[in-house]
Amino acid sequence: MPFAPPGVADQVIAALTFDDKGLIPAIAQQHDTGEVLMMAWMNAEAVRRTLEEGVVHYYSRSRQALWRKGDTSGHIQHLRDFRYDCDSDTILVLVDQAGVACHTGRRSCFFRQVTAAGIDGDAATPLPSSSS
Amino acid sequence: MPFAPPGVADQVIAALTFDDKGLIPAIAQQHDTGEVLMMAWMNAEAVRRTLEEGVVHYYSRSRQALWRKGDTSGHIQHLRDFRYDCDSDTILVLVDQAGVACHTGRRSCFFRQVTAAGIDGDAATPLPSSSS
Repeated sequence: MPFAPPGVADQVIAALTFDDKGLIPAIAQQHDTGEVLMMAWMNAEAVRRTLEEGVVHYYSRSRQALWRKGDTSGHIQHLRDFRYDCDSDTILVLVDQAGVACHTGRRSCFFRQVTAAGIDGDAATPLPSSSS
Repeated sequence: MPFAPPGVADQVIAALTFDDKGLIPAIAQQHDTGEVLMMAWMNAEAVRRTLEEGVVHYYSRSRQALWRKGDTSGHIQHLRDFRYDCDSDTILVLVDQAGVACHTGRRSCFFRQVTAAGIDGDAATPLPSSSS
């Protein structure tokens, strides 16, 4: 389902500041629970597809290719809210994450937690305390 | 108040992947409401100070200097939870934000919202729907 028409995508791409590799960081957050799921990168085409299709696309720096999240895993991110910040150099997408966000099978990629005792390499998903 | 001792900070710095400029992106989220407040960059020293002092530090790319968030504004971020992701190349800090996170005076930096009608340049803070 489209989220915004092509004219709006053009406006957004013109407003964003991409880095010297043509990329911008994008944070994905589960829209209802507030879990921060992952951070990945978008290029202009990923921004366009995300807005026009309502499904989150990224740019894979390792594969140097546009990537529709969930294309192989089925773990699609349905777009609910598209935000960008004061400096126009970071995107925040609020999404409805099908299944899990992390390629390790965990709900969120942020499962490594630092405590006074050391590093916990398999901590529970970081949920805001008001919803836990 | 220290969050983790120097030995743990050493471990974390060794585990993280910094980019070719020696930086790593860090997302700040309000620990209880789930608001994503901002994204900025840390170098190894910012990671160390954040963990050892329990107050979030960043590295300013424009000023090329270590930066304790809130030093001039008073809008300090008290560290509640320090996370990093599966690829060890992004940090998530859950914080207690004093005052506002954004230099524009808004609570969150992500106040620009894209809708089907265009760009809203002054949207309300993106709160997870379960806590709004």
